[in-house]
Amino acid sequence: MKEQKKLSFTSDYMEGAHPLILRKLAETNLEKTAGYGLDEYSESARKKIRAACGTPEADVFFLAGGTQTNAVMISALLRPWQGVISAGSGHISVHEAGAIEYGGHKVLALPHHDGKITAEAVRDCLETYLQDANRDHMVMPGMVYLSHPTEYGTLYSLAELRAISEVCRRYQIPLYLDGARLAYALACPENDITLPDLGMLCDAFYIGGTKCGALFGEAVVIPDRRAVPHLFTMIKQHGALLAKGRITGIQFDVLFTDSLYLQIGRPAIEAAARIREALAAKGYDLTPPSPTNQLFLRLDKAQAAALSEKVEMSFIEQTDDGRVIMRIVTSWATTPEEADCLIACL
Amino acid sequence: MKEQKKLSFTSDYMEGAHPLILRKLAETNLEKTAGYGLDEYSESARKKIRAACGTPEADVFFLAGGTQTNAVMISALLRPWQGVISAGSGHISVHEAGAIEYGGHKVLALPHHDGKITAEAVRDCLETYLQDANRDHMVMPGMVYLSHPTEYGTLYSLAELRAISEVCRRYQIPLYLDGARLAYALACPENDITLPDLGMLCDAFYIGGTKCGALFGEAVVIPDRRAVPHLFTMIKQHGALLAKGRITGIQFDVLFTDSLYLQIGRPAIEAAARIREALAAKGYDLTPPSPTNQLFLRLDKAQAAALSEKVEMSFIEQTDDGRVIMRIVTSWATTPEEADCLIACL
Amino acid sequence: MKEQKKLSFTSDYMEGAHPLILRKLAETNLEKTAGYGLDEYSESARKKIRAACGTPEADVFFLAGGTQTNAVMISALLRPWQGVISAGSGHISVHEAGAIEYGGHKVLALPHHDGKITAEAVRDCLETYLQDANRDHMVMPGMVYLSHPTEYGTLYSLAELRAISEVCRRYQIPLYLDGARLAYALACPENDITLPDLGMLCDAFYIGGTKCGALFGEAVVIPDRRAVPHLFTMIKQHGALLAKGRITGIQFDVLFTDSLYLQIGRPAIEAAARIREALAAKGYDLTPPSPTNQLFLRLDKAQAAALSEKVEMSFIEQTDDGRVIMRIVTSWATTPEEADCLIACL
Amino acid sequence: MKEQKKLSFTSDYMEGAHPLILRKLAETNLEKTAGYGLDEYSESARKKIRAACGTPEADVFFLAGGTQTNAVMISALLRPWQGVISAGSGHISVHEAGAIEYGGHKVLALPHHDGKITAEAVRDCLETYLQDANRDHMVMPGMVYLSHPTEYGTLYSLAELRAISEVCRRYQIPLYLDGARLAYALACPENDITLPDLGMLCDAFYIGGTKCGALFGEAVVIPDRRAVPHLFTMIKQHGALLAKGRITGIQFDVLFTDSLYLQIGRPAIEAAARIREALAAKGYDLTPPSPTNQLFLRLDKAQAAALSEKVEMSFIEQTDDGRVIMRIVTSWATTPEEADCLIACL
Repeated sequence: MKEQKKLSFTSDYMEGAHPLILRKLAETNLEKTAGYGLDEYSESARKKIRAACGTPEADVFFLAGGTQTNAVMISALLRPWQGVISAGSGHISVHEAGAIEYGGHKVLALPHHDGKITAEAVRDCLETYLQDANRDHMVMPGMVYLSHPTEYGTLYSLAELRAISEVCRRYQIPLYLDGARLAYALACPENDITLPDLGMLCDAFYIGGTKCGALFGEAVVIPDRRAVPHLFTMIKQHGALLAKGRITGIQFDVLFTDSLYLQIGRPAIEAAARIREALAAKGYDLTPPSPTNQLFLRLDKAQAAALSEKVEMSFIEQTDDGRVIMRIVTSWATTPEEADCLIACL
Repeated sequence: MKEQKKLSFTSDYMEGAHPLILRKLAETNLEKTAGYGLDEYSESARKKIRAACGTPEADVFFLAGGTQTNAVMISALLRPWQGVISAGSGHISVHEAGAIEYGGHKVLALPHHDGKITAEAVRDCLETYLQDANRDHMVMPGMVYLSHPTEYGTLYSLAELRAISEVCRRYQIPLYLDGARLAYALACPENDITLPDLGMLCDAFYIGGTKCGALFGEAVVIPDRRAVPHLFTMIKQHGALLAKGRITGIQFDVLFTDSLYLQIGRPAIEAAARIREALAAKGYDLTPPSPTNQLFLRLDKAQAAALSEKVEMSFIEQTDDGRVIMRIVTSWATTPEEADCLIACL
Repeated sequence: MKEQKKLSFTSDYMEGAHPLILRKLAETNLEKTAGYGLDEYSESARKKIRAACGTPEADVFFLAGGTQTNAVMISALLRPWQGVISAGSGHISVHEAGAIEYGGHKVLALPHHDGKITAEAVRDCLETYLQDANRDHMVMPGMVYLSHPTEYGTLYSLAELRAISEVCRRYQIPLYLDGARLAYALACPENDITLPDLGMLCDAFYIGGTKCGALFGEAVVIPDRRAVPHLFTMIKQHGALLAKGRITGIQFDVLFTDSLYLQIGRPAIEAAARIREALAAKGYDLTPPSPTNQLFLRLDKAQAAALSEKVEMSFIEQTDDGRVIMRIVTSWATTPEEADCLIACL
Repeated sequence: MKEQKKLSFTSDYMEGAHPLILRKLAETNLEKTAGYGLDEYSESARKKIRAACGTPEADVFFLAGGTQTNAVMISALLRPWQGVISAGSGHISVHEAGAIEYGGHKVLALPHHDGKITAEAVRDCLETYLQDANRDHMVMPGMVYLSHPTEYGTLYSLAELRAISEVCRRYQIPLYLDGARLAYALACPENDITLPDLGMLCDAFYIGGTKCGALFGEAVVIPDRRAVPHLFTMIKQHGALLAKGRITGIQFDVLFTDSLYLQIGRPAIEAAARIREALAAKGYDLTPPSPTNQLFLRLDKAQAAALSEKVEMSFIEQTDDGRVIMRIVTSWATTPEEADCLIACL
């Protein structure tokens, strides 16, 4: 039942889980534990995450997937008259089927640069709102959503994140960060943002599991738990509370044992670096440029067709000049041999 | 890290998964497959479920949990001016933190008898609505929600289900069945409703995985797929679409291989039968009476305290006469030895 | 174009407005004023209402209708995980087409006695929630909704209202009162609740205009404005902000000039009293008994048919014994002659 | 209590109603009629509107205001997985406080040209969606929202409207038109779109009353009523159903008697034309240029301050070059003398 005729680089959620996770699930399988995340494994994972993030008082919740986590947290952080500031390319703005609007909130899209927004643009958005005589007829910008790495694989610098956080605090709105692929940032040499930085600069963020070695699951961290009252019930109300909460608890317990989460992205980053170099050497147009595990290729249609015969990539978009942008993604499970094969194809 | 000091009978989601599921997850772990349920394992599971239900044209989707599945399906089956008829004791009415109302719909609660509603009560509800001169100012009953087994462990008979289905079809509203614990019905001698009966009588239903041997996951079956257009996108919008869809696909593929799902509830039913008999012999008040894997005990406070020292049960409610109702639940993983221990405690 | 072939007592919103209102609308018609309630007439009405209610710091907003006002205020007073306690007969529970659920909140219906609920029942509801081990999976009771007069024309006593208010304050949830027909309470000898009582005991309430002499409009009073931030924007978001806000402002300015609102219900109460007496003398079954401008008659079908030939009433419901409950309503515009005619018909 | 110290040209909802409306409200004031739009005046208005639009089978509903009407109709025309295409400058996109998102739907904003979008842009939006491999993870464009005149006072030509309508029909999505200021289009020489054109080309549209001579009220026209089932109940659910429906019915009955609605905008258009000419002669920058009753002036701050001392205008926005855009609006009630005064100020 294999689907591996071609080299497959379509995404980082094509494999199962890191073997240590499967082993731990098997070892603990017939133990009986309390439901809904009240078990000891979830508690252990919470402790390790708090320690890793330098946030001893944080609330930590485990949810099943990224869109769900974004929808719950944005609902929890906003009041009804508020919307969420996001890059126009943000996952919540484009690829979540309107989940945020389904929850009643507008996504206030800002222009992006390779997937990123700036502190200045956020401040302008807030000031424009505050100075608009009709602001009481408008959606109030009530929080900021960032993703790190972004949907284009790019990274905020610590200085950029700090500047955005300062704007948020000056205007008293929460900063929320989507870390669906956070492990790939943490394993990337270009990245200078650590988990404790997130703990200090964000009001809430999630540490991605699904794309970073878990079967599924995301860990929400809320450094100051008073920021989000009754979140347990809101998670339940969104259908996002897992009965067997320990399944996510165990996975994050493993991911945060012996700093596994800090290392798990390395094979992906190393493979991506070698592929990037090979692509550049062959003259491929790598735009926008990404230092992490996603590579974007701007191809004309003949190129795209030729390459697609050998490698499964994912389609991103048509460009105005008639070309297409295709994406190659490596993962925690990518082997050097797979990278070699891909390079040999080029 | 064990939590097993006391005998634990609080629920049927305290263990991990059936060992065959874990084995299959391990075997397939590093294969690469398409995301979002488009993989071959999910497709294989869909085929087996269609065959088991006698619904060759059915749409089958895999979601993560019960509240989520109910919220998505009720949103998908109702139009904005409609509500869902349910027993007042229905899970959607009491224990889903308002998930249905969060989705914009009223739960139209009918009086229940041991967790069940009748075709007659459904028809009366519909007729009362139709005959009310103010009906255009009211929520239209737009579908029926049943659970089987119910929240009280009771079972509909095939005749009862058929009668409710006939009412629904006469009034042209869909019938939806929540099978969170369906395996325990299917393994119960008192049950005369089969999967093909559900395929014939319901417009949508879900086959529970979380409480029936999976790590997590529920399989929605829609016998006539035209009943619910664009469900994939609605699942995504609700944050209920798993990126690694194969994780649920594999689990249901195992559960529907060699009729495992039809047998997996047997240890629970057998243990519950022996415990029920022992309780009755000791004079315990078993109200409401349940033939499946949930047993309800009406205890005065001294009894409840004494029994709770030896056995972990779950609290259900205070009764008007100052007693409490406690629940003992067996599961697919309950061993005869555990039942023996419990019986010895009484 | 008259529709008055029969005597018409179907409701209290069948006529236009009190003549003083129309006169003022005509006098001010071509003045230019600011929109959205920022005009001087609205401000004048707000001042008079604050004075009448003894709430000098109150926020006052004017909305178009009752269902709208309830939907906006309940959304504004609840957080997402909360629901609203109401009599099962409450307007929000039955006759608002699911507007509260459309806004995401469950109506937690309590049994009623002639349309009323008790402080004890509210406290029990709150305590039951707090003592339920599963409460985090349930909708939290987050506010209380009362109507005065109720949907059955009955009245809370000041002692009853005070008791409910005390429970709300002890449990720190807001008390909201729907005064759609408040003028008929204020004009009724049996009533002992004044506007300042509402200002002291409620966290928000509305003074009905539509059924009490205005063309349309309800005035929301929020004694402590900090209870509901950004209400202007929420009103706009619900589509409930009138561009020509002065139209409601002028109407309430007239209604609160020279205590008109306190007197406007008198003709209705006097006519109802005489009709009630005549009905009782003829042996009609007046159940539930109402001291205000709505009279409920329990009729067998022959009686109902005979009476309906002479008088337009409104249908309320079928009773279990095969009878119907019909309603006769008087209004601020009912003349003694109309009451005479009706009495002559009996 | 006058607020007329300065010349006031801030909007077209600053006065009351056309005198004929007030007269009719007074004449009919004490008649008794059925509620909720079931009265004879509403029925008469519906007939006249159907005749004026050439849509004998149309459903016609009367609502209180524009944001409300847009929110109800967009909810009624979309399914949960769909969003509404609109100009980025559309009222629903900017100035309705997130009412559409509150109802669960995304506004899919297209770039605008002086407030307008093109058939080509609509088609591109639909094609881009259909050709996107990830479209099932995205919001489906499910209808088109236009305003005529636009928020910038500009007009679609009949050819432009027809082209957009053709695209909508080819892709089977409804076209909805917001006619908040429709009377000013109908009275404008540059306009070539008639009410029967709207009846033919739109699936739903509303004829604005609030800004066009009514106290308040908008008339929704649905040429083929099967397009929107159960709209009465949805209107109620949104809190938009007026108890005294005749108040809007009477107003539209007057507006559609003797073609008043076709003429009522003329004084505004004539005054605007003279003011526009005077402004142009003085060298003011009229951008964007509008042929209807709204004039937009691009002023530097000194100019804006000077003019604001004599004339009340409304603030629209800051421009990137440090200027401001101010708006002058005439209305059905603007007199030639007022225009003279304004021109004398320049």
